[in-house]
Amino acid sequence: MERYDLIVIGSGPGGYIAAQRAGNLGKRVLLIEADALGGICTNHGCIPTKSLLGGAKLYKHALSGEQFGLEVDGARFNYSQAVAHKDETVKTLRGGIEFLMKSAKVDVIFGHAKVVDEHTVAVGDERYGCDFLILATGSSALVPPIKGATLPHVLTSTEILALTEAPPTLAVIGGGVIGVEFASFFSMIGTKVTVIEMMDEILPMADGEFAKLLRREMKGVEFHLGCRVEEIDSQHVYYTTKSGERKSIEASTVLLSVGRKPNTAGLEALPLVIERGGVVVNDRMQTNLPTVYAVGDVNGRSLLAHSASRMGEVAVANIFGSKEMRMRYEAIPWAVYCSPEVSGCGITEAEAAAKGVPVKRATVQMRASGRFLAEEGKRAGGLVKVIAHQESGAILGIHILGSYASEIIWGAATLIEAELRVQDVKEIVFPHPSVNELIKEACFQIDAGL
Amino acid sequence: MERYDLIVIGSGPGGYIAAQRAGNLGKRVLLIEADALGGICTNHGCIPTKSLLGGAKLYKHALSGEQFGLEVDGARFNYSQAVAHKDETVKTLRGGIEFLMKSAKVDVIFGHAKVVDEHTVAVGDERYGCDFLILATGSSALVPPIKGATLPHVLTSTEILALTEAPPTLAVIGGGVIGVEFASFFSMIGTKVTVIEMMDEILPMADGEFAKLLRREMKGVEFHLGCRVEEIDSQHVYYTTKSGERKSIEASTVLLSVGRKPNTAGLEALPLVIERGGVVVNDRMQTNLPTVYAVGDVNGRSLLAHSASRMGEVAVANIFGSKEMRMRYEAIPWAVYCSPEVSGCGITEAEAAAKGVPVKRATVQMRASGRFLAEEGKRAGGLVKVIAHQESGAILGIHILGSYASEIIWGAATLIEAELRVQDVKEIVFPHPSVNELIKEACFQIDAGL
Repeated sequence: MERYDLIVIGSGPGGYIAAQRAGNLGKRVLLIEADALGGICTNHGCIPTKSLLGGAKLYKHALSGEQFGLEVDGARFNYSQAVAHKDETVKTLRGGIEFLMKSAKVDVIFGHAKVVDEHTVAVGDERYGCDFLILATGSSALVPPIKGATLPHVLTSTEILALTEAPPTLAVIGGGVIGVEFASFFSMIGTKVTVIEMMDEILPMADGEFAKLLRREMKGVEFHLGCRVEEIDSQHVYYTTKSGERKSIEASTVLLSVGRKPNTAGLEALPLVIERGGVVVNDRMQTNLPTVYAVGDVNGRSLLAHSASRMGEVAVANIFGSKEMRMRYEAIPWAVYCSPEVSGCGITEAEAAAKGVPVKRATVQMRASGRFLAEEGKRAGGLVKVIAHQESGAILGIHILGSYASEIIWGAATLIEAELRVQDVKEIVFPHPSVNELIKEACFQIDAGL
Repeated sequence: MERYDLIVIGSGPGGYIAAQRAGNLGKRVLLIEADALGGICTNHGCIPTKSLLGGAKLYKHALSGEQFGLEVDGARFNYSQAVAHKDETVKTLRGGIEFLMKSAKVDVIFGHAKVVDEHTVAVGDERYGCDFLILATGSSALVPPIKGATLPHVLTSTEILALTEAPPTLAVIGGGVIGVEFASFFSMIGTKVTVIEMMDEILPMADGEFAKLLRREMKGVEFHLGCRVEEIDSQHVYYTTKSGERKSIEASTVLLSVGRKPNTAGLEALPLVIERGGVVVNDRMQTNLPTVYAVGDVNGRSLLAHSASRMGEVAVANIFGSKEMRMRYEAIPWAVYCSPEVSGCGITEAEAAAKGVPVKRATVQMRASGRFLAEEGKRAGGLVKVIAHQESGAILGIHILGSYASEIIWGAATLIEAELRVQDVKEIVFPHPSVNELIKEACFQIDAGL
């Protein structure tokens, strides 16, 4: 039986980063993957959606550039070309991960891992021994117990990426990140899209006014909030509104994006503590079994690719490092790559209120940015909000809706991690003209003093 | 004679921000502007160029989106529509500044200011008194003593913005920020552009390898480096190469972008110390006259709109504030909005070597970013470089070439101002997939440990 310092099960952004970091520390590492290197993120999630969204945004811009001087005789979205580009992007990145694993001297094997005990994993007939085990098995799309949910035109996010042409009509059940990104993509390329969300607002992690404005800016997408889907048939989705009315919409394709459940198949032999489906971990990513760690979606703590990667680093640091490292959840940025983009980092106003944290905050309209006006025109909407602690002035949250939101937000993570205050941000020089300088503007609106 | 706490001469980003901040502190402020509110930046610089560049980028994307699924039958750049949009953007922002001045209760008068003494300024026949004076008179394009430089088709950056159609051929003399942005704009919309630069590389503030790669990525622009322009006639620009060869290119329009000189007209009555044309100031923005401050281009310290604004804040804080505030130049980001974009903040490798600062650094190819690959394809070039102090690991410089460079760089200013180290950046969670996460990747390449 081959023995390793570390076995990692699952090669998504949690698993492959953990394997790479450990390999780079000189450890003997085995990475086991049941499907393709990169996991859901690379193969069926973040990357393919961003490839498709990129093309769709170009198409949208080609159709709407007249006020900026762009004249186009006719434009079409070539779906199969977009899919070919998506597939090429995924393949390139998979190759990149393969290369990283080789560079870090990580052994990779493909197959379904079955954990035998805390120090032994089986793949087929082969067994592998290890001192430490990192579970990075990810999650799968939830299929809710709705009549018709298993009909062939009712798809999960993985399945919808395999379409070869755009559907004429699409019902998106669930207005979280995944639902909103697909709604944005398909509506940009001409599909009639309806989102049905059970809660009163889409994007639960977003600040309320941002989600509301996003719905208004996502022209062409119809949103039905507070509605429960009751049944799906081959042409319709039937739902009940908040007031109890029974309604239906037509849909040639239906996307189920109501949530995800941790993947724990193959882990049954381990006496793990599991809560709400997720493997319970402490803030060092350690499970109740001292040599077994769990990172990424499988622990259900923060279902984001970059959270998974950071958890992988934290786990490896605690296993092999000389000092303890803790996972921090206060400054994890998130971004939705719809059009317009929306992103955030840190606390929302609602969270602050719920936790009793006293805050001061300011919201600035995007059109206060010269760059935004120059590139988007004065009818486009967008917002930047900064939330700070009432007394200390420490930055606690930043929220952005509008162009570049996804690439600006990393600096918010930096501000929060460095524990900078409104006063400090006011003394930082932001580039002009830019969208990001609205963060400084918001800080001056919180406190006009110098 | 009306008396003020503060008179500000010039309403560019240095002057209007100074006036606004002082007004918001409850001070009586007079702002004097000779031309239009907003100065060069708003009326003839940052904002109009970004409006035009925005449209040109849309046009470029419409022509080159095939690999991403965009099919366009025919595309044209409507120059007069782009100009109309630019003019509307400028007007809107000018209106915004007018509103800000009203909100801050700043008096604004238009006319040429003539300083009478340290506490008196004349505009026409009227005189105004003040306790403090902030000079924010800006700069003007240098017209070099070249034969033919005053011909009607030889334009400064202000004049070229008044064109009503794209010239067939353009010679850009001087490859600094202004020259590169106009070269990028006109080449994107079909003008044959040649840049002639006297130094060995364009963009003197950029890290060398970034400038070099930018030249390669700005397809369609010809660059002649190390060349001195000798003469311009109605159809040609004549220049001498480094090896002494005399050559010429055809150019229907010529842009002079060889530098700018501080505007000191109207200040003659003040016994100011002036060096290399700029009003000398200390790091509190104070001139040799204790109640006279100088901010922005007129002091020649950092010819950037946002540097000017920050200097305005520093001046006002030192005049009216309770504690001393110093201008810091170590973390001023800059961005060039050409296609692809380039930006930087902090030290370059060459500067580190010249100053004897021991550094470690890593350069990452843009195509290591999944988002970049998804949106730009694998043939597009770009770079991210992180430079840190050899011993302390403190981040000293970040340089970016590629998409979103201009909106990512603010976070670099944050890192440098907060004195974060490579180790700290490795513990920050960056959003995935993004271009900005390459900064973290570069930090791990500097030091693979956890």
